[in-house]
Amino acid sequence: MADGKKQVKEITSMETDFAKWYTDIVKKADLVEYSNVKGFMIVRPYGYAIWENIQRILDNMFKETGHENIYMPLLIPESLLNKEKAHVEGFAPEVAWVTHGGNEPLQEKLCIRPTSEVLFCEHYSNIIQSYRDLPKLYNQWCSVVRWEKTTRPFLRSREFLWQEGHTMHASALDAQNETLRMLNVYADFVENSLAIPVIKGRKTDKEKFAGANATYTIEAMMHDGKALQSATTHNFGDSFAKAFDISFTDKNGEIKFCHQTSWGMSTRIIGAIIMAHGDDNGLVLPPEVAPLQVMIIPVAQHKEGVLQKANELLARLKKICRVGIDETDQSPGWKFSQYEMKGVPIRLEIGPKDIEKNQCVLVRRDNKEKLFISLDELEQKIPVLLDEITKNLYNKAFQRRQQMTYTAKTLEEIKEIASTKEGFIKASWCGNEQCEIKLKEVADVSSRCMPFDEKIIENNCVCCGKEAKSLVYWGKAY
Amino acid sequence: MADGKKQVKEITSMETDFAKWYTDIVKKADLVEYSNVKGFMIVRPYGYAIWENIQRILDNMFKETGHENIYMPLLIPESLLNKEKAHVEGFAPEVAWVTHGGNEPLQEKLCIRPTSEVLFCEHYSNIIQSYRDLPKLYNQWCSVVRWEKTTRPFLRSREFLWQEGHTMHASALDAQNETLRMLNVYADFVENSLAIPVIKGRKTDKEKFAGANATYTIEAMMHDGKALQSATTHNFGDSFAKAFDISFTDKNGEIKFCHQTSWGMSTRIIGAIIMAHGDDNGLVLPPEVAPLQVMIIPVAQHKEGVLQKANELLARLKKICRVGIDETDQSPGWKFSQYEMKGVPIRLEIGPKDIEKNQCVLVRRDNKEKLFISLDELEQKIPVLLDEITKNLYNKAFQRRQQMTYTAKTLEEIKEIASTKEGFIKASWCGNEQCEIKLKEVADVSSRCMPFDEKIIENNCVCCGKEAKSLVYWGKAY
Repeated sequence: MADGKKQVKEITSMETDFAKWYTDIVKKADLVEYSNVKGFMIVRPYGYAIWENIQRILDNMFKETGHENIYMPLLIPESLLNKEKAHVEGFAPEVAWVTHGGNEPLQEKLCIRPTSEVLFCEHYSNIIQSYRDLPKLYNQWCSVVRWEKTTRPFLRSREFLWQEGHTMHASALDAQNETLRMLNVYADFVENSLAIPVIKGRKTDKEKFAGANATYTIEAMMHDGKALQSATTHNFGDSFAKAFDISFTDKNGEIKFCHQTSWGMSTRIIGAIIMAHGDDNGLVLPPEVAPLQVMIIPVAQHKEGVLQKANELLARLKKICRVGIDETDQSPGWKFSQYEMKGVPIRLEIGPKDIEKNQCVLVRRDNKEKLFISLDELEQKIPVLLDEITKNLYNKAFQRRQQMTYTAKTLEEIKEIASTKEGFIKASWCGNEQCEIKLKEVADVSSRCMPFDEKIIENNCVCCGKEAKSLVYWGKAY
Repeated sequence: MADGKKQVKEITSMETDFAKWYTDIVKKADLVEYSNVKGFMIVRPYGYAIWENIQRILDNMFKETGHENIYMPLLIPESLLNKEKAHVEGFAPEVAWVTHGGNEPLQEKLCIRPTSEVLFCEHYSNIIQSYRDLPKLYNQWCSVVRWEKTTRPFLRSREFLWQEGHTMHASALDAQNETLRMLNVYADFVENSLAIPVIKGRKTDKEKFAGANATYTIEAMMHDGKALQSATTHNFGDSFAKAFDISFTDKNGEIKFCHQTSWGMSTRIIGAIIMAHGDDNGLVLPPEVAPLQVMIIPVAQHKEGVLQKANELLARLKKICRVGIDETDQSPGWKFSQYEMKGVPIRLEIGPKDIEKNQCVLVRRDNKEKLFISLDELEQKIPVLLDEITKNLYNKAFQRRQQMTYTAKTLEEIKEIASTKEGFIKASWCGNEQCEIKLKEVADVSSRCMPFDEKIIENNCVCCGKEAKSLVYWGKAY
């Protein structure tokens, strides 16, 4: 185990420096490499395999809810980006501009898509005529570019991978239903597949998406008590539809404007996985998205029969889970800490003594529990164990969030909590943006969301004392 | 059937105008919509679903051969693109340049990747140290941009979707084996899954990839006798490795340069599917990549029990294939021609009389054959039929290619054939680029490839009459 300890020491501990702990994991678990293109990251095979699992599960959920994939152009002409005023004001300052193509200056400059609302709108205006054409439920998997000044792997980079859903509906109600339906799809995915509890709610106007009537969010708490906005859905009403003339003839022959939504989740969610579940030994991956769910490590592998038996187990387990084997000449201790670092949910150790007893050792990554399991029971036990790991990860994250969520009734209270504790603060709000700005100034917290299904805890705004309109989760955020 | 005929008439016939026939299908089968961004296409849901099937099959093949997916930056700094001389000379004239980010001019301009060799090389130079790190077998799914002057959907557009494999090896032999292995993967996929016969061979130096030592290709013949280069693999030797200092310590402690390959297939292959199998009624899709393999069309659907039975069949068939149902109030005739246009391999008709007889009608898209099948036998018959359709499509394309392949021994012969016939011309070649240039001038043909496993048919070059070194397939190409 000496080798193993050596490797573990190489990571900064969470307590010492959370930001450094995060970047250490990102590098040491082989998720990301910095590229020489400033602010752009290389997503390495192990990181990309997590994204592929996320894509597969989400894509199935989108298709089950009737969505179709499409691919739109990478570039947006300046005049098209300018068509919806609030939208362009939000995005123009952070886009990358293409000014030359094939060694010649372009007549009109083109930006690399920071998001694709305007492209979808232009297309929808061409293909929607009648109520029979609605709803249109499209999604796109791609990368987008936003010229961020400071960047961090997964959390904020100049290019990131994501999916963006863009839908058109016949009525305001249909659009609102879609906005909430997709928020629930995201919440189900993050809670069930990623084992991260989320708070579903609405963003304040100050925090909503550029051009949207309303933005909804799922907010997750990280180990350090900060919030990570894990996915958002937007209801645009008919403002883009008016700007782009996306109209249809309804059943009565009347011409009406469409109602629109968009929604997205990005590789940022991998940052959430790291910071919600990771520990000082490295990554801890929820089984559903782990590239490898079980890693087989032969012990005393030079002894007769060990590698053979280990490979027998590999062949058996391949039928029920994603499994690997490490037969390299590194020590078992080195391997143990290597796959702890990589967050593999279950380690399977098999050595000569185990073989004698027709058993193996299973070690859980989430709680280090060591189980001696008969080789005859592997196919039964491993799926159950993977499921238990997911549940335990969820419960741990949920309990942490409960412990790190506070309530405040006055400005003094919220200032006191924000300056001495890490976590979320629930407090009532009058609805005035000035109070949001003031809370940012005096307590360094921003509004995360106005939660569904939670009642106002106090009738007066935590900031100005006037009548409260909503409960708000406040906190520091990524 | 009146409606149906009306719709069919809307397509230009292949014979009248092949190019117009192609673009008619692309539009009418809902594969692509032109965007307002000049030269960029919108891949619509039906077209994208074909690409998703291609991706799924190829990606599995890549993973089975040990490749891992990765994601590299979208943008390449000018200085990085300039690092390998032959490569930059090939690509610099056709790239799009980003000169501004976030409203500020960039210190160094960045091009949108036209291909990612230099990005992979830079990464490999950072992560390869020892022979233990080799081979590195990476692949990327993404879009690339090349500033083409004239564009056509799928065949040539300023942005296209593709995969690009980039691998590093310890020896020249390993790299050569990989180059040929991946050519075989592509050939297997195109022949078995897309039912398109291909000629495997090597490109002449004039036609090889910018910066490669050798380029290999699979060439397919379209309905009009033109060639479509369906995928290429490149052996770079160690030239990039030297430019980027990608070296490793071998088993004997010596420092050596790596040997490199790359290989790609793009959405261009959808153009090949259209032009290899399509007919005057529209698209004809090979079953393995068809978004829908069977379309159920209820006949006299207002009659009692028809829709119920049709939906029963839908539920049954969902377990064994990709199946849809059209219950809209359009006439059966309209629906027949609609799904012929969309190339669905099997149409399943079910009406009151069929139900009485416990049967349905299956109509093959590839040969219009009509089969009356007992409802009890559907699960048995449909997979067999899909397989037969694939084989028939392959055979038809193979026979056409045989019939449209000619041989020439002299310059007069090749000129005569090229000016009077459509198709491939096999002729011997001395290896001199001047002869290639002359044949392009006088016969308007280019070298498609030097085929594997075919012997020289004449000892003298078809152009200059000097000693021949290779057999070459000549032709017009997309």
